[in-house]
Amino acid sequence: MVFEADTAAGKAFDVVLLLAIGLSVLVVMLDSVESIAARHHDALLAAEWAFTLLFSVEYLLRLVCARRPLGYARSFYGIIDLLAVLPTYLTLMHFGWQHGVVLRLLRLLRIFRVFKLAHFLGEADALRRALAASRAKIIVFLSTVVIIACIMGAAMHLIEGPASGFTSIPQSLYWAVVTLTTVGYGDLSPVTPLGKVVAGLMMILGYSILVIPGGLISVEWARATGKVPTTQVCPDCSGEGHDTDARHCKHCGAAL
Amino acid sequence: MVFEADTAAGKAFDVVLLLAIGLSVLVVMLDSVESIAARHHDALLAAEWAFTLLFSVEYLLRLVCARRPLGYARSFYGIIDLLAVLPTYLTLMHFGWQHGVVLRLLRLLRIFRVFKLAHFLGEADALRRALAASRAKIIVFLSTVVIIACIMGAAMHLIEGPASGFTSIPQSLYWAVVTLTTVGYGDLSPVTPLGKVVAGLMMILGYSILVIPGGLISVEWARATGKVPTTQVCPDCSGEGHDTDARHCKHCGAAL
Amino acid sequence: MVFEADTAAGKAFDVVLLLAIGLSVLVVMLDSVESIAARHHDALLAAEWAFTLLFSVEYLLRLVCARRPLGYARSFYGIIDLLAVLPTYLTLMHFGWQHGVVLRLLRLLRIFRVFKLAHFLGEADALRRALAASRAKIIVFLSTVVIIACIMGAAMHLIEGPASGFTSIPQSLYWAVVTLTTVGYGDLSPVTPLGKVVAGLMMILGYSILVIPGGLISVEWARATGKVPTTQVCPDCSGEGHDTDARHCKHCGAAL
Amino acid sequence: MVFEADTAAGKAFDVVLLLAIGLSVLVVMLDSVESIAARHHDALLAAEWAFTLLFSVEYLLRLVCARRPLGYARSFYGIIDLLAVLPTYLTLMHFGWQHGVVLRLLRLLRIFRVFKLAHFLGEADALRRALAASRAKIIVFLSTVVIIACIMGAAMHLIEGPASGFTSIPQSLYWAVVTLTTVGYGDLSPVTPLGKVVAGLMMILGYSILVIPGGLISVEWARATGKVPTTQVCPDCSGEGHDTDARHCKHCGAAL
Repeated sequence: MVFEADTAAGKAFDVVLLLAIGLSVLVVMLDSVESIAARHHDALLAAEWAFTLLFSVEYLLRLVCARRPLGYARSFYGIIDLLAVLPTYLTLMHFGWQHGVVLRLLRLLRIFRVFKLAHFLGEADALRRALAASRAKIIVFLSTVVIIACIMGAAMHLIEGPASGFTSIPQSLYWAVVTLTTVGYGDLSPVTPLGKVVAGLMMILGYSILVIPGGLISVEWARATGKVPTTQVCPDCSGEGHDTDARHCKHCGAAL
Repeated sequence: MVFEADTAAGKAFDVVLLLAIGLSVLVVMLDSVESIAARHHDALLAAEWAFTLLFSVEYLLRLVCARRPLGYARSFYGIIDLLAVLPTYLTLMHFGWQHGVVLRLLRLLRIFRVFKLAHFLGEADALRRALAASRAKIIVFLSTVVIIACIMGAAMHLIEGPASGFTSIPQSLYWAVVTLTTVGYGDLSPVTPLGKVVAGLMMILGYSILVIPGGLISVEWARATGKVPTTQVCPDCSGEGHDTDARHCKHCGAAL
Repeated sequence: MVFEADTAAGKAFDVVLLLAIGLSVLVVMLDSVESIAARHHDALLAAEWAFTLLFSVEYLLRLVCARRPLGYARSFYGIIDLLAVLPTYLTLMHFGWQHGVVLRLLRLLRIFRVFKLAHFLGEADALRRALAASRAKIIVFLSTVVIIACIMGAAMHLIEGPASGFTSIPQSLYWAVVTLTTVGYGDLSPVTPLGKVVAGLMMILGYSILVIPGGLISVEWARATGKVPTTQVCPDCSGEGHDTDARHCKHCGAAL
Repeated sequence: MVFEADTAAGKAFDVVLLLAIGLSVLVVMLDSVESIAARHHDALLAAEWAFTLLFSVEYLLRLVCARRPLGYARSFYGIIDLLAVLPTYLTLMHFGWQHGVVLRLLRLLRIFRVFKLAHFLGEADALRRALAASRAKIIVFLSTVVIIACIMGAAMHLIEGPASGFTSIPQSLYWAVVTLTTVGYGDLSPVTPLGKVVAGLMMILGYSILVIPGGLISVEWARATGKVPTTQVCPDCSGEGHDTDARHCKHCGAAL
């Protein structure tokens, strides 16, 4: 029942799991707010232990039910499931509550598993294929952006200098990334006229080019769910890459 | 006349209604500006009552003219129309002027009704179909973004700590959303070198992926108004790629 | 020669004009910088008069050369050309230098005329057609955005109140636009926890939807320069909307 | 071996080169951080000289191995390679360490050469073709943006005036670019009601249009790697829509 998502019981199990993940993450978050933690610490701790026990039972169940327990334990989700319960137990051994927070939030990754519930799996798979299809494009693109940011950052370090807060190249590189991505906190901004001109050019450049990878991925994603070029191979010349509406091989002219 | 938009009188009615909605919203807005409200309070109150009476008359007219009055009263626009006039009457019973402001602004939603005026209805419908078509994609996408924001926020809470203003995980989550969406108010920004590195990576990531849903919707929208290819195959020549409105094969002319 | 862009003399004239526009705009800009204006006021004034006389001569030449002088004087570019020289003459009548600055910068619009130089005209026309094609979409879209901004702004006015700077609904509306467009100056930002939650949701929403019109326009633009659906009409049934690769009418099956 | 990337030795050479470039850039960056430079200056200087000697040897090797040494020396990468080593030698002649930083970071451009390693070259070439294909579009577009920014900036200079920090037109132009690109540092922001209205309209406008060039480039890029439809018509059946690599008509099989 734990693994089968197609039965009614399996679906109910997934919904309960989704709720438990959501609530346990809420508990972790509320516990980090000092004013709430001070007043409701005991209740939050109790809830935390309840969720930890629930997830531990689920982990053991999965381990028992799995055909190959070791395979599950070594899988991506197996490790996530273990990391989701471990930190709370470690607090017993006085390893500290604080540093387990991020590990505990890894529980959120388990939400992806519940996507098997509906037709989301197909979309998630299409997204994965779209990312794979545009991987080379994205690597070329990000390299270009990083190189631009580095050179621009170093230039601004020279132009503005420490007086405006551009104290070092890494600091200027941080500013360049904040500017190129149009986040623009304003904790660092150019002060000299020349710096403003360079920053202005950088913004227009950054804005124009940073939309590209997202655009690529959406085109690929829309394609991945749409019709896919046939994998048909010509019986005569073994040529590939035919359109879906092709009736003759475009390489040798043989009928497909 | 109230319902028929195709006649000249119906169109004039819609234009008058559009103007009335715009002016009444302007009155609500001006009334919230203290310096204006102090000087012109009586005039604004009078205008407010005039618009309320106008909209009340319109509501009653629609109720009377409708073939099924209850059906209208329960419909989306029926409820909006009621909410648009109710708050002003409630002030008579001393329920307070202030909290009715948002309800009063719901009048704006009535603008959508006037879109039936022109060929906007087709576009609005195409947008709705585009959103429906990419709904699964958007849910998968937003879940991914929220999970990234949560984990990144918690990590920054640990890295930066309360000294830089990252006092709790919800607070850091707010920062993560402000950064991922490239809004970047600057009320919270990383101070430590490690925090800046993590924030920089987050920005590049965020910028690259947050464009995706918009890109998807525009592709789908452009598709939804254009012709949608059917998967229909010609019975004669097995030709594909026919438009949805095609009655004959475009390759051989056989009836579909 | 002034009107003919295809001859060598016409091209040279356009290049000179482009340079003159650029330099005259630079003069206007430099004159607004106090430290520069204080030192070089005489030189800038002289340059301004030189450019004004040049543009006046050009305006008169165009008026004389045009087959229908009144047609030119009333055209878009005719008015721009007049506005570009008028403010300087008005300073003689003590109408003030300052307020003519924006009119003087309208000279920049004349740059568009020089686009006739190359194959830019085709692209500018394609852009114009793309904008026209997605006009209804953009009106529906912008209405939606403005309505969301109004309702969200009013809600934040109630949630945050004057203490956080959200002193009135117009002020909150300004904040809503700054946030939805991800500009995020930081002069206004939510302070209360509830305000931060609402603002966070607004950002994700805003980011997802505001990319849409740009995406639409680029798709339409790429389409407008790419292949256009044939305007071919069926000789039999007068049906329209055939694909470029259609050999038979998709409505009645007659050969095209 | 230096030039051949297809052999195992050539690939290993490229990987070593990539590492050396990365490490040498890290050294330049760390050296600019005062606290690190104070403590580890000798080690960083030694590393800098080691990398400089390594790159010098590589430069000389390429010069010797090249069939036409002068052709290499004058090529883009030849100049980059020279600029990457020169600044360190110039410090010997007391030309100052600081100003060579940007030149030294030009080493990063050499990373592009290593893209020949994998199938990145094809993608980089596709990007180059996509940029070339949409060049006219981008020039038309950027001109429009710059003109809008200039006119809007001058208008805001008049509306806001020096009291809000809009001291001159170039300063206001800087603000207009920061706003149109949605960076929004917040060092300059409108204060008067009219200024806020104009700024709000500018943001919506800016957001809507600035996505366009990126969208165009991604569409073109996706096209450039995909197959490009030719306008070739089959001499036998007049069928259209053939791929560029098609040698036979896909409809009837006739040789093209």
